Amino acid sequence: MRTRHVLPNFRIAVVGAGAIGLYYGGKLAHFGREVHFLLRSDYQTVRKRGLRIRSKNEEIHVPNALAHRSSGEIGPCDLVLVAVKTTSNPELPALLQPLLGEKTMLLTLQNGLGNEEFLAGQVGVERVLGGLCYISLNRTAPGVVERIDAGSRLAIGEYRGFPQPRTHEIAWEFKRCGVVCTVVADLILERWRKLVWNIPFNGLSVVTGLDTAAILANDGLRLLTIELMEETIAIANACGQKLPTALALEMVRRTQSMVPYKTSTLIDYEAGRPLEIEAIWGEPLRRGEEAGVSAPRLQMLLRLLRALDRQRSQ
Amino acid sequence: MRTRHVLPNFRIAVVGAGAIGLYYGGKLAHFGREVHFLLRSDYQTVRKRGLRIRSKNEEIHVPNALAHRSSGEIGPCDLVLVAVKTTSNPELPALLQPLLGEKTMLLTLQNGLGNEEFLAGQVGVERVLGGLCYISLNRTAPGVVERIDAGSRLAIGEYRGFPQPRTHEIAWEFKRCGVVCTVVADLILERWRKLVWNIPFNGLSVVTGLDTAAILANDGLRLLTIELMEETIAIANACGQKLPTALALEMVRRTQSMVPYKTSTLIDYEAGRPLEIEAIWGEPLRRGEEAGVSAPRLQMLLRLLRALDRQRSQ
Repeated sequence: MRTRHVLPNFRIAVVGAGAIGLYYGGKLAHFGREVHFLLRSDYQTVRKRGLRIRSKNEEIHVPNALAHRSSGEIGPCDLVLVAVKTTSNPELPALLQPLLGEKTMLLTLQNGLGNEEFLAGQVGVERVLGGLCYISLNRTAPGVVERIDAGSRLAIGEYRGFPQPRTHEIAWEFKRCGVVCTVVADLILERWRKLVWNIPFNGLSVVTGLDTAAILANDGLRLLTIELMEETIAIANACGQKLPTALALEMVRRTQSMVPYKTSTLIDYEAGRPLEIEAIWGEPLRRGEEAGVSAPRLQMLLRLLRALDRQRSQ
Repeated sequence: MRTRHVLPNFRIAVVGAGAIGLYYGGKLAHFGREVHFLLRSDYQTVRKRGLRIRSKNEEIHVPNALAHRSSGEIGPCDLVLVAVKTTSNPELPALLQPLLGEKTMLLTLQNGLGNEEFLAGQVGVERVLGGLCYISLNRTAPGVVERIDAGSRLAIGEYRGFPQPRTHEIAWEFKRCGVVCTVVADLILERWRKLVWNIPFNGLSVVTGLDTAAILANDGLRLLTIELMEETIAIANACGQKLPTALALEMVRRTQSMVPYKTSTLIDYEAGRPLEIEAIWGEPLRRGEEAGVSAPRLQMLLRLLRALDRQRSQ
């Protein structure tokens, strides 16, 4: 067994062992942190063979990953990475309860809008942080995650208020484990900014089966992308999150200069996994409706995605 | 050879031997009319084995159907049924030229909007009639067409002005051959009324893969159907075609009481055939844009359909 530099007083739990949980938990574990993975279907495999992260530039194997079948086995932790699909949020309160100590911090790495609010309602606002994962991962087998794209970035922030010393300490933990991590001053604004990208690209990729480059190469879909972005920006603004309208064109230009990118939602769709429709499209539309903002294209996209998702699961 | 009661002075040509052309031409030929079929890929088969119409209640075989490879072979006719896909409209003028005599009437049985206008521009307004085919057909093999649904109706009318004696005479020709055929006073209004149905159902069926019953069983898609109908009605009204907004709910209710229906566009899509996107969605949207009517859902549907059609043909 390889010597590991485990900080004696800092226990980390990872709830949800999809691609995101395996990747970020795996990085922290590989570089010596005490990381407890709460697993379901991957439990036996990870217990026996550990977990693996593969990409062009790295091949990580954590042979002795701490695998658990219940959070009661893990007990109170200092930091919990919440990485379950948002479709499993209703199960979260019961899973989190045994992990909570007096000062436990929860960092949700989930997609879309409303996850911090949901956790805050369960465990209290002051415990909650959020992270935005700009990364393309695919869990290709139990305990195995592949990183697809070259660049990646994790942006973390406090749910309420400005960054605190703990925010920077968590960011530092990720950084020393080789994760490019920045601290953002306004987490929810960043969530909206990410939604401006995810709403058109992830949504249209599922409806059309196309990657980002193919979407933007099609005149009609490029215009539709921009219009969906503008609807999202209008909702964000009505919710008090200041994003400039020019962001739409800027994002389209930036995406045109990227390598063709297959969105995580399309990967999930093709793999027959549940789609995080309510977090990415449903919740933003609801906020828009509350604020009296008309967003017919977002509404139509949401309805098409729900129908495609439902049809597949029948 | 079976005796046929051919009217000596009435020659009919069918241009385009897809499902619609084979069916209506086949019915007229079966009941003794002189019908010349202009064929391409089906030529050899129809020449050898004739054409066949199949449905629950009828099995028609026209063994000696008059098959031709060029309209020059056919020469001037009294009536031309125009049944090519609207995607082939650019080829029509050359195909029609040899068929035109001094009083030749053209009856377009094509889908969508703009076909009468197109023909009138080529051959003159006074020659043009139009027909709306409320029928579900599938050309299952060369020279073979299957009728899928139980009921069917052909509604014909003059492109410009009220029905004339000739309109009723043509309707009578169809009726005596077993086609339920009515004469409509306002053909273009009827076209818009049909579009109010085709735009949502044919469009959403391709995007989702669902039949009419499944579309209406989904809450979001049912609302979207109604909204697309209302956008279409608003455009029709702005174009001077008076359709009541209540038509949307009425059509949805009537469709809910129908047996599940797979649209012709979905059948074409699944069979890899070209979709009549511009005639059914493109032209109505263009009319709306000219009239200053906003139709964001129709616009989005058009863009998605174009992308799906293009992607498939690559």
